[in-house]
Formats: sequence, structure tokens, C-alpha cells
Amino acid sequence: MKVIIVGGVAGGASCAARLRRLDEDAEIVMVEKGPYVSFANCGLPYHVGDVIERESDLLVASERLFREHFRVDCRTGCEAVRVDPVAKTVDLRDVGTGDVTTESYDKLVLAPGARSIRPPIPGIDLRGIFQVRTVPDAREIREWIERGTSFLAGMEKYSGFQTVRPKMHAVVVGGGFIGLEMAENLVARGFDVTVLELADQVLTPLDLEYGNLVRNFLELHGVHVVVGDGVARFERNDEGEALTVTTQSGRTFPADLAILSLGVRPETELAQQAGLEIGERGGIRVDEHMRTSDPDIFAVGDAVEVRDFVTGEWSLIALAGPANRQARIAADVIAGRDSAFRGTQGTSIVGLFGDAIAWTGASEKTLQRLGDTDYEKIYLYPNSHAGYYPGARPIAMKLIFRKSDGRVLGAQAAGEDGVDKRISHIALAIQLGATVFDLEQAELCYSPPYGSAKDPINFAGMVAADVLRGDLPLSHWESIDGGFVLDVREMPELAVESVPGAVNIPLGQLRDRLHEVPRDRAVHVVCRSGQRAYTAARLLRQRGIDAHVVSGGMLSRAIVSMK
Amino acid sequence: MKVIIVGGVAGGASCAARLRRLDEDAEIVMVEKGPYVSFANCGLPYHVGDVIERESDLLVASERLFREHFRVDCRTGCEAVRVDPVAKTVDLRDVGTGDVTTESYDKLVLAPGARSIRPPIPGIDLRGIFQVRTVPDAREIREWIERGTSFLAGMEKYSGFQTVRPKMHAVVVGGGFIGLEMAENLVARGFDVTVLELADQVLTPLDLEYGNLVRNFLELHGVHVVVGDGVARFERNDEGEALTVTTQSGRTFPADLAILSLGVRPETELAQQAGLEIGERGGIRVDEHMRTSDPDIFAVGDAVEVRDFVTGEWSLIALAGPANRQARIAADVIAGRDSAFRGTQGTSIVGLFGDAIAWTGASEKTLQRLGDTDYEKIYLYPNSHAGYYPGARPIAMKLIFRKSDGRVLGAQAAGEDGVDKRISHIALAIQLGATVFDLEQAELCYSPPYGSAKDPINFAGMVAADVLRGDLPLSHWESIDGGFVLDVREMPELAVESVPGAVNIPLGQLRDRLHEVPRDRAVHVVCRSGQRAYTAARLLRQRGIDAHVVSGGMLSRAIVSMK
Repeated sequence: MKVIIVGGVAGGASCAARLRRLDEDAEIVMVEKGPYVSFANCGLPYHVGDVIERESDLLVASERLFREHFRVDCRTGCEAVRVDPVAKTVDLRDVGTGDVTTESYDKLVLAPGARSIRPPIPGIDLRGIFQVRTVPDAREIREWIERGTSFLAGMEKYSGFQTVRPKMHAVVVGGGFIGLEMAENLVARGFDVTVLELADQVLTPLDLEYGNLVRNFLELHGVHVVVGDGVARFERNDEGEALTVTTQSGRTFPADLAILSLGVRPETELAQQAGLEIGERGGIRVDEHMRTSDPDIFAVGDAVEVRDFVTGEWSLIALAGPANRQARIAADVIAGRDSAFRGTQGTSIVGLFGDAIAWTGASEKTLQRLGDTDYEKIYLYPNSHAGYYPGARPIAMKLIFRKSDGRVLGAQAAGEDGVDKRISHIALAIQLGATVFDLEQAELCYSPPYGSAKDPINFAGMVAADVLRGDLPLSHWESIDGGFVLDVREMPELAVESVPGAVNIPLGQLRDRLHEVPRDRAVHVVCRSGQRAYTAARLLRQRGIDAHVVSGGMLSRAIVSMK
Repeated sequence: MKVIIVGGVAGGASCAARLRRLDEDAEIVMVEKGPYVSFANCGLPYHVGDVIERESDLLVASERLFREHFRVDCRTGCEAVRVDPVAKTVDLRDVGTGDVTTESYDKLVLAPGARSIRPPIPGIDLRGIFQVRTVPDAREIREWIERGTSFLAGMEKYSGFQTVRPKMHAVVVGGGFIGLEMAENLVARGFDVTVLELADQVLTPLDLEYGNLVRNFLELHGVHVVVGDGVARFERNDEGEALTVTTQSGRTFPADLAILSLGVRPETELAQQAGLEIGERGGIRVDEHMRTSDPDIFAVGDAVEVRDFVTGEWSLIALAGPANRQARIAADVIAGRDSAFRGTQGTSIVGLFGDAIAWTGASEKTLQRLGDTDYEKIYLYPNSHAGYYPGARPIAMKLIFRKSDGRVLGAQAAGEDGVDKRISHIALAIQLGATVFDLEQAELCYSPPYGSAKDPINFAGMVAADVLRGDLPLSHWESIDGGFVLDVREMPELAVESVPGAVNIPLGQLRDRLHEVPRDRAVHVVCRSGQRAYTAARLLRQRGIDAHVVSGGMLSRAIVSMK
């Protein structure tokens, strides 16, 4: 059996290694048009930021390793330019010489990845504008930065006196996770960074309030974030000058460096040319065995559409984890095993300035877009570990679950500590079909430096389960306009921030002042994060008052009122 | 309805708060014989170590809070001394005055906790010997340390010249998690610490090789650890002198301070006096609703026996997480709800000198004790996050799973980073009935600082699944005596450590040197951690050689050969 694998990064390389382990006799050819196989593209922003200092650290496995350990005929600088699915051949072009040869295959695996979206913006080809997809991309950006800073260093020397080095400016076009990681890494390199995002929020998989939370956090760290505005043109009058980036609304930003991170599109050229079915989202259509519409051609990674595990929708997920697992599955199936991909939950994390933002499963806006109203959401702000042990940090969490059966649908979280752990727990729970009742009872590692006796996961499950059992009727800030707002916090807390029009009765006085709470309308109870409000609401409801807990209290208010 | 709750720490306090939320009208009396309710007993060792500086930080919720927020009649310094289950009364003794009053109840909740085991060792009542169960215990230890160090400081001053302060000695009796946390915290306070453990390992829930790993790690950090030897007597000739601790084998250790942490026993005196059923492990017997043999009496926390989730055995688990959840369940049931405890997995974590050791579910020795042979184990050493991103640390992991169906049974792990996350994932997976195939496909948060495209959890699942599918026949160091050992590492690695009698063929040369590998006997393939050995074994097996991968390779060898 002869297998040709097109693409040698995450998907292709994993597939080649797995296939060799399953079949020592297969002839495996892996072609990669770039100069490297199996490089760490997730590490590129950190190489630009000099967090990963050596380029060689990004090269996870070499061509030589594939040849020696896996006996894979590994060819870099080799592009697949044409597939003939009837003759079962691929035309391969040597990128250096331009020579084209034709190779036959029994099975073909397409792992071409995705390409950066590059709209026809005037000036997009000017020098100083980069994308971040490959090792050479990162190398060029580093060289550009180093030339720029040494030029300035020369100016300082020439001027003959100590000077504050003028701040270099960078514009990052696109507020997805690569864009934001680049923003952080350019700040680390001393740039004044502006992120331009056409959508009304950064990190569009998040719900708007979490997008706003991230935007405000970036601004706290000195990054300028512009949302709802795209780039109209790039200009440069003179080679020595900075670029000028003009937005659609007419704002201008100087840029010594510009990064294009407008997202990616599946590389489907070869698949289309081969007549393979392309899905509704523009990716190669595959079944759960990663088989395309041609039974001898498989496709994996960023180029394919996969089912969303929660919503069942086709989706494009350019993530390394799923790509690796899909590659394994394709190799299994080619080697005659039964193996199937479960779909993706879009589980992601972005580290920014020491904090992390992570999400998994369905967002509220996705459910709304689908017209799905059988869900509830809760906001909570538990500590990352026992509050009495030093270093505990609050985690802002949003959990979304089925109202009818408690199934966990999705979650979003942000904070300095323990975010990756909790969103990964929830991702695992979603894939295992867990309900909020399962989260409530989960038994997780606890000692004071590592968690709480009621871990944030338990706490989320407890709150959600209380909601579903009818013990904790919720309200949300966006829907309490005009209602009676009861603030059960203590006086000193009100001094920091209060809700206009709210009536304050501290929890400890509530039983004695019940007569001050109206019985003829809904009462929305507020405290700092929701815990005291819950106790108050339980009390009030048992006294015949239609009390609701405002989910996440004042902390949620701070987030939802962010602009 | 009147409910009396005996005990006001984790279980009692949680139960009181939950019950009030469910039933505003119940009369709730919570009695605690100590001076504080709801204190953080898990934080006590860290208060001794001055990591948690203020005693007040350990007091999570006050008596006043229980009165004001929860309208609980909260009485500290009040001991329940007698239960009359027929009359449904409890005799309560005021610890200060000795006065006894009798209170009636409709429902009684016993949350008395556990007491430190305190065997009749000669000299055990000498000054300078402490246990660590309560806030006053921690306060006494701190005062003792501070007196001791100021005494020495005085000596230095008196002697009139700079001197190296003589090292103070501490002996910790018992190598369970409180003992080891105390050892760490006493090192932080400047003590030379010796841990004495009667069993043949520290942290007895771990398998022996992991116990040895922890012991060696402690010794690297300057803690002397003696296993297989108990205390015979404590002696002190003169008040000014240190104690002498003599072991059963006749060794002696000086101790300016000794800590007794021999484990705990359920407080069952009251339950026994009330005629409640006591279980085979010596805890109060309860059903899944936390109900004792008397339908109006409930019991929760360290005093009860609960079912082990994996083995189904009755077990005693003195952990805060389960205590809290049990308390919630007891409150639910008393308030007429349907709620049941799922049992415990014994999920635990201990932080030591910046590393963590954690475990969940069944250990190998537990399965062996039960005569259960339907399991397999794997050892692996994945990085805590992408290896190319700075700060990645190896995690030593052992995963135990059902051979017949792949169900995850238990895991143990140690390392500097990400241990809590991975063991918590596995704990969640166990409770959700997951198999290794689920771990293989898990979609967890990944970006270079937070994980790997193949997370340690995926990696564990992949290896285990390969084993179950028959693709990766395993062997273990303890069972390869006399077999043919093939080392596929590179020459420079052999210089560091090699296996006596092993034949070395680097993986890259194996295909050309197949004739050097015997075909008439089992071949055990070794590399650093198992990955290259796996590739080699796949190759060999497809060439008709009975190859096995030695699980965890040289890294496992280092651990299993620790004494």
C-alpha cells in the first residue's frame, strides 16, 4: 500500500507516524511545500516575543527523524499541485526547481492546513506588513523588529545625548487569538500596540460580555483595542517612515509594523481541483472516519469541516488538538481499524499578560442564533484556590446548560490562575455527556494551594443545579429593567459601587425588615457575586416574595456594563 | 422542625447553611465543642509555616455570621455528650462551666469529625509534642517555635560574637499528608526535620514506587525520612533540652519539637452511645442519603464510612470535599429532597516544596489486595505543557484501567506543574464512568503555556488504548528478569545510564539490524520514556518478533529501583 500525505505539520506528521506504527510495510510519502515538517505553529507568536528564544525550538521533529525513525519518504519544499482521483496520482512540484513529477497512491491524505485570510486591501503588500503562519514568517518579523530597534539605537547614539527612545508602533489587524497573542508579544518587544477588529468584539467565539472583559483587560495592559472598524488601506510615503493604517471609519494609526491576523480559510484548492465535496463552511467535507467524498482520499486538520459536538453544526476549527486526533483516526482507518472522530467542542485558551481566557462548547450567542431557548446561564466568580491560602485569584466563569435536563453545553472563563484547569474539566464533562448534577458531585484534587473543598467546578454545578431544582430563580442584568432591586450588601461595600434605584437591606437585617420588601412584584436580589443574594432569595421566597438572584451580582454588572 | 447539628467545622457548618436555605422555618442548633466554627483545618500546617500569616485568615465563617445570615443557634464551647434516640434528645455540656442542658430534636446530624490517633507511647504527653487538628493546636506550635527561636537568639547575643545558630530539630511522626505538609512547613521555619513512618512508605494510598518517589524527593529537600520504623518512646532529661525520640528499632533522634500525625479515627463515641450502627472500618455506618441506622439521625464527614466509588468497599476518607458534599446531601434529605452521595474516590493532592503529588481512584496495591487481576497499568512522563515553551516540566503519571473494557480505575502523578489538573481530569473521568478511549479523544484547553496538542491526558489515553487494542504489548520492570532487553536509545544517552545486559540498537538503525534481535523469545524494548520503544516494538512485531514495550522506559526504571 502506498500512501501520500499532503502537508507535514500537525495533521500530516501525526498521520505519517501513526500509519507507520500500524503498518511497517506501507510506502509513505509525506510532502510539505514549506521548508519544515512538524513545526510548532502555535509557538510562533512567542518566538516573535522572544519568549521562545531559539527558532530551532519550534522544530518539533525533523525530516531526518521521519526518515530514520519512521521510514517516511519525507519531502519538504514539495507542493502537491494536482490530484487525479481516477488514475490515483498526485503531481508534485519541487518548489526550488519547479520540476513536476507524478506519484501514484493507494490512499491519499490531505492535510494542507489553512491559509491566512488576506483581503484585497490597498497597500496590503507594502513592506512591514506580516502574517504569522510559518517559521519564515516569524523569522521575518523578528528581523524587521531587530532592524528597526537597531536603527533607533543608532539615532540615539548619533544625537549624542541620553534620550527616551521613541516608542515603536504596531497595528495588529484582527482580534482573534493569534492577533491577541501577537499583541502581547509585541508589547513584550516594546511596541505600542493597537488591535483593529471589524467585529464588535475580540475573540468572537466568546459571548459579547466576555469579549468586552478581554478588551478592557487588554487596555489595562496598554493595548489599544478598536472594535467595529476594519482596515481601509495601508500607506507609506517614504521607506524610512512608518506605515499609516487608515480604518473604514477614517481613523489613522502609525505602524512601524503591522500584523495581519484576520483568521484563516481552509486550503481547499487541491480538494476542489480533485472534485472532492466541499462543505457549507468552505472546508473539505469528511465523514467521522475523516474520509472525503472519494473513498481513497482522507482529509484532516484545519482544511476540513467537522461536526460541532454540542450543536451538531458543521464547523471550521483550526486547532492543533483536533488536527492531531483526526490524523490518528485517518491513519487507523487506512490501516483497516475502526476509528471515528467525535466532533469538536472548539475548546480554546489564550494566555494574555499572565491571565488566561478559555472557552468550550456552545456560547450563548450560538444558541441564540440557532433559536435554541432551552438553556440557562449562570455567572460566578469563585477563587482559584482556598481564599485563605496566599495567591488565590478570582475566576470569572459563565456556565451554559440545558434547562430541560441539566446537560452542560458550554463555558467561558477568565482569570489569572486555574482557568485552563476548569475549562478543561468542563470540556471533558461535555464530551462525556455530563450534567450540572455531575459537576455538583465531582470529586477533584483539593488542598489549599490547589483548589477549594468546593471547587469552582462544584460551585458552578451547585448553583446550576439549584437553578434547575427551582430553588434559585435567576435574573440577569439585561432583563431586570424596572424591577425592584434589593441590594443585600453591607454599607461599606455600597460606598464602592451601588445600583441606582436599588434598596439596601444588609442580609443580616433582612429577616427584621421583611416588610420593606414588596410582595406584589419580582424582587431582584443583588450582592457582590451572588452568594448572599442566594441566601436572601431563599429566605424571601419562603416568605411569599417572588425573589430572584441576579446572577453574579455586582461583579457581573461590572462586566456587562463594559463598553 | 428542630435540627441539632453536632460539630461546626466542614460538615456541620455546610449542613447548617444549606438547611437554612432550604427551610427558613426550621429551628437549627449547631454545637461545636471547640472555640471556632467553620475553620480551615486544611490550612493549619501552612499557618505553622507562616505561609498563612494571620490566624484570623483560618476562620472562614464566624459564629456571628451563622447567627445573622443563617439564623442558626450556633454554640461554640458546647459539647454533645449524650444522645437519647428514643426521647430524641441530646445532652449538651458547656465546656467552660460544665453545665449540662438537654435539647430535643426532630432530626439530628452528627458531624463530629475524627480525632488524631494517639497511641500510648511512653512520654507522649511530654511538652513539645503536638498534634495539628485545631486552631489552638497550630497556635501552640507557633508559640513553641517562636519561644524556641527567641531563646536561641538570646544565646547568640549573650555569647558576644557572630555564630551559626544551631539548627533546631523536629520529628514528625507519621508520613501521611498532614505529616508531610508539616515537614515542609517546619523546614520553612528553619528546622532540620525527620519523618518517621511505621509503614514501608510515606503516603500509603500511593503505590510503593510512588511512595518511594516522594520519599526520595523529600530527602532531596533535606527532610530525613525513615520508613518501616515507629516511635518506641519520647524522653526528656531536662526542660532546657530537646526531646529524644527513640524508634522501635532503637534509633534515636533529637527533637526540639515533635508532631504527631499518625492519622485520624472517626469520632464515634456519641454514635456508639446512641446505639447507632458502626461499620467495619470503625466509622458511623450511613446509607447513600447520609442516614444512620436511626432514621432521624444523619452523619457526615470524617466520622462516617462511605463507599469507595471504584472498588465498592467501605472506606474512611477524611477529606473536606466529600464532607461538604455529604453535608449538603444530609440537609437536602432532611428538607425532604431526594439526594444521594455517589461515594468517594479518595482524590487527594499534597503540595511539597513546589511539587505536587496527587492520586485518585484505586491503586494497584488495592486491586491486588482485592485479588482483582483485570487491570493494566501504564507509566508515562509527559510534559506539563508544550516542550518548546519555557517552563515545561515532566509529570510522572501512572494510570490504572480495566483490561476487559478500558474503564479508568485510578491514577497517581507527581511533578512541579499541572499535576492537580491532570489528576482532577481523571477523577472526573472515573466518576463519569469514562474509559481510556474517552481520555484518548478528550478535547482540552491547549495553547503552548497551558498544555500540549496531545495533552498528558490524551497521551495516557492513547497509550492505554493502544495497549488494549493489542498494538502495544507492555512489560514492566518487575517482570522482565531474564528476558532480552533491547535499548533503542542513542549512544550519548547510554552514557548517562544503561541497563546491564541490554543490547543497544538505536531506533534509527533498527530496520537494518533486525537480524540482531532474537526471534525465539520475548524482547523488552526500552527507551527514555517509552515513545521510541513503542515505534520500535511496532516495527519488530510486524516482523514476527515478540516485542514488548517496557512501560515508562528508563524513567520508570529510576523510580522502581528507588529504595
